[in-house]
Amino acid sequence: MSNIALYVEKIENALKNTLPELSEETAAIGDMLRYSLEGGGKRIRPLLCLEFCAAAGGNVDNALLFACAVEFVHTYSLVHDDLPCMDNDDYRRGKLSSHKMFGEANALLAGDALLTEAFNLLSRAAFEGHVSSEQAVRAVRELSLLSGMKGMIGGQYIDLKYENTPANLPVLIEMDTLKTAALIECACALGLIAAGADDMEISYARDFARELGIAFQIEDDVLEASESGESSDVKNGKVTYVSLFGVEKAKELAAIHTKNALSALERFGPAADEIRMIAENLLNRKN
Amino acid sequence: MSNIALYVEKIENALKNTLPELSEETAAIGDMLRYSLEGGGKRIRPLLCLEFCAAAGGNVDNALLFACAVEFVHTYSLVHDDLPCMDNDDYRRGKLSSHKMFGEANALLAGDALLTEAFNLLSRAAFEGHVSSEQAVRAVRELSLLSGMKGMIGGQYIDLKYENTPANLPVLIEMDTLKTAALIECACALGLIAAGADDMEISYARDFARELGIAFQIEDDVLEASESGESSDVKNGKVTYVSLFGVEKAKELAAIHTKNALSALERFGPAADEIRMIAENLLNRKN
Repeated sequence: MSNIALYVEKIENALKNTLPELSEETAAIGDMLRYSLEGGGKRIRPLLCLEFCAAAGGNVDNALLFACAVEFVHTYSLVHDDLPCMDNDDYRRGKLSSHKMFGEANALLAGDALLTEAFNLLSRAAFEGHVSSEQAVRAVRELSLLSGMKGMIGGQYIDLKYENTPANLPVLIEMDTLKTAALIECACALGLIAAGADDMEISYARDFARELGIAFQIEDDVLEASESGESSDVKNGKVTYVSLFGVEKAKELAAIHTKNALSALERFGPAADEIRMIAENLLNRKN
Repeated sequence: MSNIALYVEKIENALKNTLPELSEETAAIGDMLRYSLEGGGKRIRPLLCLEFCAAAGGNVDNALLFACAVEFVHTYSLVHDDLPCMDNDDYRRGKLSSHKMFGEANALLAGDALLTEAFNLLSRAAFEGHVSSEQAVRAVRELSLLSGMKGMIGGQYIDLKYENTPANLPVLIEMDTLKTAALIECACALGLIAAGADDMEISYARDFARELGIAFQIEDDVLEASESGESSDVKNGKVTYVSLFGVEKAKELAAIHTKNALSALERFGPAADEIRMIAENLLNRKN
Protein backbone atom coordinates (compact mmCIF):
# COMPACT_ATOMS: atom_id res chain seq x y z
CA MET A 1 0.00 0.00 0.00
CA SER A 2 1.34 3.38 -0.97
CA ASN A 3 1.29 6.30 1.47
CA ILE A 4 1.20 8.87 -1.29
CA ALA A 5 -2.54 9.64 -1.07
CA LEU A 6 -2.32 9.86 2.72
CA TYR A 7 0.63 12.25 2.55
CA VAL A 8 -1.08 14.46 -0.03
CA GLU A 9 -4.12 14.64 2.23
CA LYS A 10 -1.94 15.64 5.18
CA ILE A 11 -0.36 18.33 3.04
CA GLU A 12 -3.70 19.70 1.78
CA ASN A 13 -5.04 19.85 5.35
CA ALA A 14 -1.92 21.50 6.67
CA LEU A 15 -1.88 24.08 3.87
CA LYS A 16 -5.53 24.87 4.56
CA ASN A 17 -5.11 25.26 8.31
CA THR A 18 -1.70 26.76 8.68
CA LEU A 19 -2.41 30.47 8.23
CA PRO A 20 -2.63 32.56 11.42
CA GLU A 21 -5.76 34.45 12.47
CA LEU A 22 -5.68 38.02 11.26
CA SER A 23 -7.32 41.24 12.37
CA GLU A 24 -10.56 42.39 10.75
CA GLU A 25 -8.73 44.96 8.63
CA THR A 26 -6.17 42.48 7.32
CA ALA A 27 -8.22 39.25 7.12
CA ALA A 28 -8.51 39.52 3.33
CA ILE A 29 -4.74 38.96 2.97
CA GLY A 30 -5.32 35.47 4.35
CA ASP A 31 -8.02 34.92 1.73
CA MET A 32 -5.62 35.93 -1.05
CA LEU A 33 -2.98 33.51 0.22
CA ARG A 34 -5.50 30.67 0.51
CA TYR A 35 -6.76 31.41 -3.02
CA SER A 36 -3.30 30.79 -4.44
CA LEU A 37 -2.40 27.94 -2.06
CA GLU A 38 -5.61 26.08 -2.88
CA GLY A 39 -4.97 26.44 -6.58
CA GLY A 40 -4.28 22.72 -6.85
CA GLY A 41 -1.06 21.47 -8.34
CA LYS A 42 0.44 18.07 -7.70
CA ARG A 43 2.19 19.06 -4.44
CA ILE A 44 5.33 17.33 -5.72
CA ARG A 45 7.66 19.35 -3.52
CA PRO A 46 5.93 18.89 -0.14
CA LEU A 47 5.27 15.25 -1.05
CA LEU A 48 8.97 14.65 -1.69
CA CYS A 49 9.73 16.36 1.61
CA LEU A 50 7.52 13.89 3.53
CA GLU A 51 8.73 10.91 1.47
CA PHE A 52 12.40 11.63 2.18
CA CYS A 53 11.57 12.08 5.86
CA ALA A 54 9.91 8.66 5.85
CA ALA A 55 12.67 7.04 3.77
CA ALA A 56 15.20 8.11 6.42
CA GLY A 57 13.03 6.63 9.19
CA GLY A 58 11.56 9.92 10.42
CA ASN A 59 8.01 10.72 11.51
CA VAL A 60 6.40 12.58 8.58
CA ASP A 61 4.30 14.73 10.93
CA ASN A 62 7.52 16.36 12.08
CA ALA A 63 8.30 17.36 8.49
CA LEU A 64 4.86 18.73 7.68
CA LEU A 65 5.55 22.41 8.43
CA PHE A 66 8.83 22.19 6.49
CA ALA A 67 6.88 20.69 3.57
CA CYS A 68 4.32 23.50 3.72
CA ALA A 69 7.10 26.11 3.80
CA VAL A 70 8.47 24.80 0.49
CA GLU A 71 4.99 24.85 -1.05
CA PHE A 72 4.49 28.44 0.18
CA VAL A 73 7.71 29.45 -1.58
CA HIS A 74 6.69 27.61 -4.76
CA THR A 75 3.28 29.36 -4.63
CA TYR A 76 4.78 32.82 -4.08
CA SER A 77 7.04 32.26 -7.09
CA LEU A 78 3.99 31.49 -9.26
CA VAL A 79 2.09 34.56 -8.01
CA HIS A 80 5.03 36.86 -8.78
CA ASP A 81 5.81 35.05 -12.08
CA ASP A 82 2.26 35.66 -13.31
CA LEU A 83 2.49 39.44 -12.75
CA PRO A 84 2.27 41.69 -15.83
CA CYS A 85 5.94 42.70 -15.55
CA MET A 86 6.96 39.00 -15.64
CA ASP A 87 4.99 36.44 -17.68
CA ASN A 88 1.73 38.42 -17.63
CA ASP A 89 -0.46 35.34 -17.26
CA ASP A 90 -4.19 35.86 -16.66
CA TYR A 91 -4.78 32.25 -15.66
CA ARG A 92 -3.04 29.74 -13.44
CA ARG A 93 -4.30 26.15 -13.32
CA GLY A 94 -7.64 27.15 -14.83
CA LYS A 95 -8.32 29.91 -12.28
CA LEU A 96 -7.71 33.64 -12.61
CA SER A 97 -4.18 34.48 -11.54
CA SER A 98 -3.79 36.38 -8.27
CA HIS A 99 -3.34 39.82 -9.85
CA LYS A 100 -6.35 39.30 -12.14
CA MET A 101 -8.42 38.34 -9.09
CA PHE A 102 -7.15 40.88 -6.54
CA GLY A 103 -5.25 43.52 -8.51
CA GLU A 104 -1.54 43.86 -9.11
CA ALA A 105 -0.56 45.61 -5.87
CA ASN A 106 -2.38 43.04 -3.75
CA ALA A 107 -0.85 40.14 -5.69
CA LEU A 108 2.60 41.62 -5.10
CA LEU A 109 1.87 41.79 -1.36
CA ALA A 110 0.33 38.29 -1.35
CA GLY A 111 3.51 36.88 -2.89
CA ASP A 112 5.66 38.74 -0.38
CA ALA A 113 3.45 37.44 2.45
CA LEU A 114 3.72 33.82 1.25
CA LEU A 115 7.51 34.05 1.17
CA THR A 116 7.67 35.67 4.61
CA GLU A 117 5.21 33.16 6.09
CA ALA A 118 7.30 30.26 4.74
CA PHE A 119 10.09 31.19 7.14
CA ASN A 120 7.59 31.57 9.96
CA LEU A 121 6.54 27.95 9.35
CA LEU A 122 10.15 26.80 9.71
CA SER A 123 10.43 28.56 13.07
CA ARG A 124 7.08 27.12 14.16
CA ALA A 125 8.37 23.59 13.52
CA ALA A 126 10.87 24.22 16.32
CA PHE A 127 8.48 26.07 18.66
CA GLU A 128 5.89 23.31 18.30
CA GLY A 129 8.49 20.68 19.11
CA HIS A 130 8.59 18.89 15.75
CA VAL A 131 12.29 19.58 15.29
CA SER A 132 15.14 21.00 17.36
CA SER A 133 16.30 24.60 16.98
CA GLU A 134 19.42 23.28 15.20
CA GLN A 135 17.23 21.51 12.64
CA ALA A 136 15.06 24.60 12.15
CA VAL A 137 18.09 26.84 11.57
CA ARG A 138 19.48 24.37 9.04
CA ALA A 139 16.11 24.47 7.29
CA VAL A 140 16.19 28.28 7.23
CA ARG A 141 19.62 28.16 5.64
CA GLU A 142 18.55 25.61 3.02
CA LEU A 143 15.35 27.40 2.08
CA SER A 144 16.93 30.85 1.93
CA LEU A 145 19.86 29.62 -0.16
CA LEU A 146 17.92 27.41 -2.55
CA SER A 147 15.06 29.84 -3.14
CA GLY A 148 17.30 32.93 -3.26
CA MET A 149 19.88 34.43 -5.61
CA LYS A 150 21.96 31.25 -5.57
CA GLY A 151 18.82 29.20 -6.24
CA MET A 152 15.35 29.85 -7.65
CA ILE A 153 15.59 33.64 -7.97
CA GLY A 154 18.94 33.22 -9.72
CA GLY A 155 17.24 30.95 -12.25
CA GLN A 156 14.40 33.40 -12.81
CA TYR A 157 16.95 36.14 -13.35
CA ILE A 158 18.79 34.09 -16.00
CA ASP A 159 15.45 33.32 -17.65
CA LEU A 160 14.68 37.07 -17.96
CA LYS A 161 18.19 37.85 -19.14
CA TYR A 162 17.98 35.40 -22.06
CA GLU A 163 14.47 36.39 -23.05
CA ASN A 164 15.72 37.91 -26.27
CA THR A 165 19.18 36.38 -26.49
CA PRO A 166 19.72 32.72 -27.41
CA ALA A 167 21.19 30.77 -24.51
CA ASN A 168 23.67 27.92 -24.88
CA LEU A 169 23.59 24.54 -23.13
CA PRO A 170 25.62 25.48 -20.02
CA VAL A 171 23.38 28.52 -19.49
CA LEU A 172 20.24 26.42 -20.00
CA ILE A 173 21.45 23.86 -17.47
CA GLU A 174 22.41 26.52 -14.92
CA MET A 175 19.01 28.18 -15.39
CA ASP A 176 17.02 24.98 -14.89
CA THR A 177 19.18 23.79 -12.01
CA LEU A 178 18.48 27.05 -10.21
CA LYS A 179 14.93 27.77 -11.34
CA THR A 180 13.45 24.29 -10.99
CA ALA A 181 15.83 21.81 -9.38
CA ALA A 182 16.89 24.01 -6.45
CA LEU A 183 13.48 24.10 -4.77
CA ILE A 184 13.00 20.35 -5.33
CA GLU A 185 16.42 19.85 -3.74
CA CYS A 186 15.29 22.01 -0.83
CA ALA A 187 12.15 19.92 -0.34
CA CYS A 188 14.15 16.68 -0.22
CA ALA A 189 16.82 18.14 2.07
CA LEU A 190 14.23 19.54 4.49
CA GLY A 191 12.53 16.15 4.79
CA LEU A 192 15.86 14.57 5.66
CA ILE A 193 16.79 17.33 8.08
CA ALA A 194 13.45 16.81 9.88
CA ALA A 195 14.27 13.07 10.09
CA GLY A 196 17.72 13.76 11.53
CA ALA A 197 19.40 12.10 8.55
CA ASP A 198 23.16 12.34 8.06
CA ASP A 199 25.00 14.55 5.58
CA MET A 200 25.71 11.64 3.25
CA GLU A 201 22.00 10.89 2.86
CA ILE A 202 21.29 14.57 2.26
CA SER A 203 23.95 14.72 -0.41
CA TYR A 204 22.43 11.72 -2.26
CA ALA A 205 19.03 13.41 -2.09
CA ARG A 206 20.56 16.56 -3.58
CA ASP A 207 21.93 14.53 -6.51
CA PHE A 208 18.52 12.92 -6.98
CA ALA A 209 16.72 16.27 -6.95
CA ARG A 210 19.08 18.00 -9.37
CA GLU A 211 18.93 15.15 -11.88
CA LEU A 212 15.15 14.92 -11.52
CA GLY A 213 14.78 18.67 -12.00
CA ILE A 214 16.79 18.65 -15.23
CA ALA A 215 15.02 15.52 -16.54
CA PHE A 216 11.71 17.21 -15.76
CA GLN A 217 12.64 20.36 -17.69
CA ILE A 218 13.81 18.39 -20.72
CA GLU A 219 10.58 16.33 -20.71
CA ASP A 220 8.69 19.60 -20.47
CA ASP A 221 10.37 20.89 -23.61
CA VAL A 222 9.71 17.59 -25.40
CA LEU A 223 6.02 17.66 -24.40
CA GLU A 224 5.58 21.27 -25.54
CA ALA A 225 7.36 20.60 -28.83
CA SER A 226 5.25 17.53 -29.62
CA GLU A 227 2.04 19.39 -28.72
CA SER A 228 2.86 22.34 -30.92
CA GLY A 229 4.30 20.19 -33.71
CA GLU A 230 7.63 21.98 -33.45
CA SER A 231 10.75 19.92 -33.67
CA SER A 232 13.93 21.86 -33.72
CA ASP A 233 12.95 25.51 -33.64
CA VAL A 234 13.42 27.82 -30.71
CA LYS A 235 10.23 28.28 -28.66
CA ASN A 236 9.00 31.91 -28.56
CA GLY A 237 12.52 32.91 -29.48
CA LYS A 238 13.89 30.92 -26.53
CA VAL A 239 16.43 28.15 -26.74
CA THR A 240 15.17 24.80 -25.38
CA TYR A 241 16.66 21.31 -25.16
CA VAL A 242 14.57 20.40 -28.21
CA SER A 243 15.80 23.39 -30.20
CA LEU A 244 19.38 22.50 -29.31
CA PHE A 245 19.22 18.73 -29.89
CA GLY A 246 15.95 17.79 -31.58
CA VAL A 247 13.21 15.66 -30.01
CA GLU A 248 14.91 12.26 -30.16
CA LYS A 249 18.19 13.35 -28.66
CA ALA A 250 16.39 15.40 -26.01
CA LYS A 251 14.46 12.28 -25.00
CA GLU A 252 17.74 10.34 -24.68
CA LEU A 253 19.17 13.14 -22.54
CA ALA A 254 16.10 13.05 -20.29
CA ALA A 255 16.51 9.28 -19.93
CA ILE A 256 20.13 9.72 -18.82
CA HIS A 257 19.20 12.28 -16.16
CA THR A 258 16.30 10.09 -15.00
CA LYS A 259 18.67 7.13 -14.66
CA ASN A 260 21.09 9.30 -12.67
CA ALA A 261 18.25 10.42 -10.41
CA LEU A 262 17.20 6.85 -9.74
CA SER A 263 20.72 5.66 -9.00
CA ALA A 264 21.13 8.43 -6.43
CA LEU A 265 18.23 6.76 -4.60
CA GLU A 266 20.00 3.40 -4.29
CA ARG A 267 21.48 4.35 -0.95
CA PHE A 268 17.95 4.43 0.52
CA GLY A 269 17.05 0.89 -0.62
CA PRO A 270 13.38 -0.19 -0.65
CA ALA A 271 12.55 2.71 1.71
CA ALA A 272 12.70 4.94 -1.37
CA ASP A 273 10.23 2.89 -3.44
CA GLU A 274 7.52 5.53 -3.26
CA ILE A 275 10.02 8.21 -4.28
CA ARG A 276 10.86 6.07 -7.31
CA MET A 277 7.14 5.88 -8.16
CA ILE A 278 6.73 9.65 -7.85
CA ALA A 279 9.79 10.31 -10.02
CA GLU A 280 8.64 7.87 -12.69
CA ASN A 281 5.09 9.25 -12.75
CA LEU A 282 6.43 12.77 -12.99
CA LEU A 283 8.70 11.95 -15.88
CA ASN A 284 6.20 9.85 -17.83
CA ARG A 285 3.40 12.36 -17.56
CA LYS A 286 1.47 13.20 -20.68
CA ASN A 287 0.67 16.81 -19.81
CA MET B 1 31.52 59.56 23.77
CA SER B 2 28.68 58.24 21.71
CA ASN B 3 29.03 54.95 19.85
CA ILE B 4 26.47 55.92 17.24
CA ALA B 5 28.95 56.81 14.49
CA LEU B 6 30.95 53.65 15.19
CA TYR B 7 27.84 51.48 15.00
CA VAL B 8 26.67 53.10 11.76
CA GLU B 9 30.10 52.43 10.28
CA LYS B 10 29.89 48.78 11.35
CA ILE B 11 26.46 48.55 9.73
CA GLU B 12 27.58 50.17 6.47
CA ASN B 13 30.57 47.83 6.24
CA ALA B 14 28.49 44.77 7.03
CA LEU B 15 25.82 45.71 4.48
CA LYS B 16 28.53 46.22 1.86
CA ASN B 17 30.27 42.92 2.53
CA THR B 18 27.49 40.56 3.42
CA LEU B 19 26.29 39.41 0.00
CA PRO B 20 27.51 35.99 -1.17
CA GLU B 21 29.61 35.44 -4.28
CA LEU B 22 27.46 34.66 -7.28
CA SER B 23 28.03 32.86 -10.57
CA GLU B 24 28.96 34.82 -13.68
CA GLU B 25 25.42 34.54 -15.04
CA THR B 26 23.79 35.79 -11.83
CA ALA B 27 26.36 38.29 -10.53
CA ALA B 28 24.24 41.25 -11.66
CA ILE B 29 21.57 40.35 -9.07
CA GLY B 30 24.13 41.17 -6.39
CA ASP B 31 24.75 44.54 -8.07
CA MET B 32 21.00 45.31 -7.98
CA LEU B 33 20.82 44.47 -4.29
CA ARG B 34 23.87 46.57 -3.49
CA TYR B 35 22.42 49.47 -5.49
CA SER B 36 19.36 49.55 -3.24
CA LEU B 37 21.21 48.70 -0.02
CA GLU B 38 23.72 51.49 -0.61
CA GLY B 39 20.95 53.98 -1.21
CA GLY B 40 21.75 55.72 2.05
CA GLY B 41 19.09 56.27 4.65
CA LYS B 42 19.70 56.81 8.33
CA ARG B 43 19.99 53.10 9.19
CA ILE B 44 17.67 53.72 12.17
CA ARG B 45 16.53 50.10 12.37
CA PRO B 46 19.91 48.35 12.37
CA LEU B 47 21.26 51.07 14.66
CA LEU B 48 18.48 50.44 17.20
CA CYS B 49 19.23 46.73 16.94
CA LEU B 50 22.86 47.27 17.94
CA GLU B 51 21.95 49.85 20.58
CA PHE B 52 19.49 47.53 22.33
CA CYS B 53 22.05 44.74 22.20
CA ALA B 54 24.56 47.04 23.92
CA ALA B 55 21.99 48.38 26.40
CA ALA B 56 21.35 44.80 27.56
CA GLY B 57 25.07 44.18 27.97
CA GLY B 58 25.57 42.21 24.75
CA ASN B 59 28.43 42.33 22.26
CA VAL B 60 27.15 44.34 19.30
CA ASP B 61 29.19 42.29 16.84
CA ASN B 62 26.94 39.34 17.65
CA ALA B 63 23.88 41.38 16.64
CA LEU B 64 25.33 42.69 13.38
CA LEU B 65 23.86 40.05 11.04
CA PHE B 66 20.48 40.42 12.74
CA ALA B 67 20.71 44.20 12.23
CA CYS B 68 21.54 43.71 8.55
CA ALA B 69 18.61 41.32 8.13
CA VAL B 70 16.20 44.00 9.33
CA GLU B 71 17.75 46.55 6.95
CA PHE B 72 17.44 44.04 4.07
CA VAL B 73 13.73 43.69 4.83
CA HIS B 74 13.30 47.47 5.05
CA THR B 75 15.12 47.84 1.72
CA TYR B 76 13.04 45.17 -0.03
CA SER B 77 9.89 46.93 1.17
CA LEU B 78 11.08 50.18 -0.43
CA VAL B 79 11.98 48.45 -3.73
CA HIS B 80 8.54 46.83 -3.96
CA ASP B 81 6.75 49.98 -2.72
CA ASP B 82 8.30 52.02 -5.51
CA LEU B 83 7.02 49.67 -8.25
CA PRO B 84 4.49 51.08 -10.74
CA CYS B 85 1.65 48.95 -9.31
CA MET B 86 2.32 50.42 -5.84
CA ASP B 87 3.51 54.02 -5.37
CA ASN B 88 5.08 54.29 -8.83
CA ASP B 89 8.05 56.32 -7.63
CA ASP B 90 10.85 57.05 -10.10
CA TYR B 91 13.24 58.22 -7.42
CA ARG B 92 14.29 57.01 -4.00
CA ARG B 93 16.63 59.15 -1.88
CA GLY B 94 17.73 61.15 -4.93
CA LYS B 95 18.66 58.09 -7.01
CA LEU B 96 16.60 56.29 -9.64
CA SER B 97 14.38 53.68 -8.02
CA SER B 98 15.30 50.05 -8.65
CA HIS B 99 12.73 49.47 -11.41
CA LYS B 100 13.72 52.69 -13.20
CA MET B 101 17.34 51.55 -13.07
CA PHE B 102 16.96 47.82 -13.83
CA GLY B 103 13.43 47.36 -15.17
CA GLU B 104 10.30 46.23 -13.38
CA ALA B 105 10.83 42.47 -13.56
CA ASN B 106 14.36 42.74 -12.20
CA ALA B 107 13.26 45.07 -9.39
CA LEU B 108 10.58 42.56 -8.41
CA LEU B 109 13.23 39.83 -8.24
CA ALA B 110 15.68 42.10 -6.41
CA GLY B 111 13.06 42.76 -3.72
CA ASP B 112 12.30 39.05 -3.43
CA ALA B 113 16.03 38.32 -3.17
CA LEU B 114 16.54 40.90 -0.40
CA LEU B 115 13.70 39.40 1.64
CA THR B 116 14.99 35.84 1.12
CA GLU B 117 18.56 36.85 1.94
CA ALA B 118 17.41 38.49 5.19
CA PHE B 119 16.48 35.08 6.55
CA ASN B 120 19.76 33.66 5.34
CA LEU B 121 21.55 36.29 7.44
CA LEU B 122 19.65 35.16 10.54
CA SER B 123 20.74 31.55 9.99
CA ARG B 124 24.32 32.69 9.35
CA ALA B 125 24.38 34.40 12.74
CA ALA B 126 24.00 30.92 14.26
CA PHE B 127 26.35 29.12 11.86
CA GLU B 128 29.06 31.73 12.43
CA GLY B 129 28.69 31.35 16.20
CA HIS B 130 27.36 34.84 17.01
CA VAL B 131 24.18 33.43 18.56
CA SER B 132 22.82 30.02 19.51
CA SER B 133 20.39 28.12 17.28
CA GLU B 134 17.62 28.96 19.79
CA GLN B 135 18.37 32.66 19.43
CA ALA B 136 18.43 32.41 15.63
CA VAL B 137 15.08 30.60 15.53
CA ARG B 138 13.55 33.24 17.81
CA ALA B 139 14.89 35.88 15.42
CA VAL B 140 13.33 34.06 12.44
CA ARG B 141 9.98 34.03 14.24
CA GLU B 142 10.20 37.74 15.11
CA LEU B 143 11.24 38.85 11.64
CA SER B 144 8.69 36.69 9.82
CA LEU B 145 5.85 37.80 12.11
CA LEU B 146 6.69 41.49 12.24
CA SER B 147 7.44 41.89 8.55
CA GLY B 148 4.57 39.63 7.40
CA MET B 149 0.77 39.76 7.29
CA LYS B 150 0.57 40.45 11.02
CA GLY B 151 3.18 43.18 10.65
CA MET B 152 4.59 45.31 7.84
CA ILE B 153 2.76 43.65 4.94
CA GLY B 154 -0.50 43.92 6.91
CA GLY B 155 0.10 47.66 7.20
CA GLN B 156 0.86 48.01 3.49
CA TYR B 157 -2.34 46.14 2.73
CA ILE B 158 -4.42 48.50 4.91
CA ASP B 159 -2.71 51.45 3.23
CA LEU B 160 -3.79 50.19 -0.22
CA LYS B 161 -7.28 49.38 1.00
CA TYR B 162 -7.88 52.94 2.22
CA GLU B 163 -6.37 54.60 -0.79
CA ASN B 164 -9.74 55.92 -1.89
CA THR B 165 -11.74 55.50 1.32
CA PRO B 166 -11.25 57.77 4.32
CA ALA B 167 -9.81 55.86 7.29
CA ASN B 168 -10.70 56.59 10.90
CA LEU B 169 -8.30 56.88 13.85
CA PRO B 170 -8.30 53.18 14.91
CA VAL B 171 -7.55 52.16 11.32
CA LEU B 172 -4.83 54.79 11.01
CA ILE B 173 -3.19 53.57 14.23
CA GLU B 174 -3.42 49.91 13.20
CA MET B 175 -1.93 50.78 9.80
CA ASP B 176 1.02 52.72 11.24
CA THR B 177 1.62 50.19 14.01
CA LEU B 178 1.93 47.48 11.38
CA LYS B 179 3.52 49.39 8.51
CA THR B 180 6.12 51.36 10.44
CA ALA B 181 6.31 50.38 14.09
CA ALA B 182 6.44 46.59 13.56
CA LEU B 183 9.82 46.55 11.80
CA ILE B 184 11.28 48.98 14.36
CA GLU B 185 9.98 46.66 17.07
CA CYS B 186 11.66 43.76 15.27
CA ALA B 187 14.98 45.61 15.16
CA CYS B 188 14.88 46.29 18.92
CA ALA B 189 13.75 42.76 19.78
CA LEU B 190 16.49 41.18 17.64
CA GLY B 191 19.17 43.24 19.36
CA LEU B 192 17.93 42.04 22.74
CA ILE B 193 17.63 38.43 21.57
CA ALA B 194 21.24 38.57 20.37
CA ALA B 195 22.25 39.89 23.82
CA GLY B 196 20.37 37.08 25.58
CA ALA B 197 18.05 39.58 27.31
CA ASP B 198 15.00 38.39 29.23
CA ASP B 199 11.38 38.58 28.08
CA MET B 200 10.63 41.53 30.35
CA GLU B 201 13.33 43.64 28.67
CA ILE B 202 12.07 42.60 25.24
CA SER B 203 8.55 43.59 26.17
CA TYR B 204 9.71 47.08 27.28
CA ALA B 205 11.57 47.45 23.99
CA ARG B 206 8.39 46.52 22.11
CA ASP B 207 6.49 49.27 23.94
CA PHE B 208 9.25 51.74 23.13
CA ALA B 209 9.26 50.79 19.43
CA ARG B 210 5.49 50.94 19.00
CA GLU B 211 5.22 54.34 20.65
CA LEU B 212 8.22 55.63 18.70
CA GLY B 213 6.75 54.35 15.43
CA ILE B 214 3.44 56.11 15.99
CA ALA B 215 5.12 59.33 17.15
CA PHE B 216 7.29 59.18 14.03
CA GLN B 217 4.28 58.82 11.73
CA ILE B 218 2.45 61.70 13.36
CA GLU B 219 5.54 63.93 13.09
CA ASP B 220 5.77 62.88 9.46
CA ASP B 221 2.24 64.09 8.81
CA VAL B 222 2.94 67.34 10.66
CA LEU B 223 6.12 67.94 8.64
CA GLU B 224 4.37 67.26 5.33
CA ALA B 225 1.45 69.47 6.23
CA SER B 226 3.66 72.38 7.24
CA GLU B 227 5.79 72.00 4.08
CA SER B 228 2.77 71.97 1.81
CA GLY B 229 0.98 74.67 3.77
CA GLU B 230 -1.96 72.34 4.39
CA SER B 231 -3.49 72.32 7.80
CA SER B 232 -6.56 70.20 8.17
CA ASP B 233 -7.22 68.73 4.74
CA VAL B 234 -6.75 65.13 3.79
CA LYS B 235 -3.45 64.50 1.97
CA ASN B 236 -3.91 63.15 -1.59
CA GLY B 237 -7.34 62.03 -0.50
CA LYS B 238 -5.85 60.16 2.46
CA VAL B 239 -6.71 60.70 6.07
CA THR B 240 -3.74 61.75 8.22
CA TYR B 241 -3.31 62.69 11.88
CA VAL B 242 -3.26 66.31 10.77
CA SER B 243 -6.45 65.96 8.75
CA LEU B 244 -8.14 64.32 11.74
CA PHE B 245 -6.92 66.66 14.47
CA GLY B 246 -5.22 69.70 12.96
CA VAL B 247 -1.52 70.54 13.33
CA GLU B 248 -1.52 71.66 16.96
CA LYS B 249 -3.40 68.71 18.35
CA ALA B 250 -1.35 66.30 16.19
CA LYS B 251 1.81 67.78 17.72
CA GLU B 252 0.42 67.20 21.20
CA LEU B 253 -0.42 63.61 20.28
CA ALA B 254 3.12 63.06 18.99
CA ALA B 255 4.49 64.44 22.25
CA ILE B 256 2.40 61.97 24.27
CA HIS B 257 3.64 59.00 22.23
CA THR B 258 7.22 60.26 22.48
CA LYS B 259 6.87 60.52 26.26
CA ASN B 260 5.49 56.97 26.38
CA ALA B 261 8.39 55.74 24.26
CA LEU B 262 10.91 57.35 26.59
CA SER B 263 9.30 55.96 29.73
CA ALA B 264 9.45 52.45 28.29
CA LEU B 265 13.24 52.94 28.25
CA GLU B 266 13.46 53.64 32.00
CA ARG B 267 14.00 49.97 32.76
CA PHE B 268 17.34 50.15 30.91
CA GLY B 269 18.67 53.11 32.95
CA PRO B 270 21.68 55.06 31.63
CA ALA B 271 22.54 52.12 29.33
CA ALA B 272 19.77 53.42 27.07
CA ASP B 273 21.10 56.99 26.83
CA GLU B 274 22.11 56.62 23.19
CA ILE B 275 18.70 55.16 22.36
CA ARG B 276 17.14 58.26 23.94
CA MET B 277 19.38 60.45 21.74
CA ILE B 278 18.39 58.55 18.61
CA ALA B 279 14.69 58.75 19.46
CA GLU B 280 14.86 62.47 20.17
CA ASN B 281 16.84 63.21 17.00
CA LEU B 282 14.39 61.19 14.97
CA LEU B 283 11.38 62.98 16.39
CA ASN B 284 12.84 66.48 16.17
CA ARG B 285 14.02 66.09 12.59
CA LYS B 286 13.31 68.89 10.17
CA ASN B 287 12.92 66.75 7.06
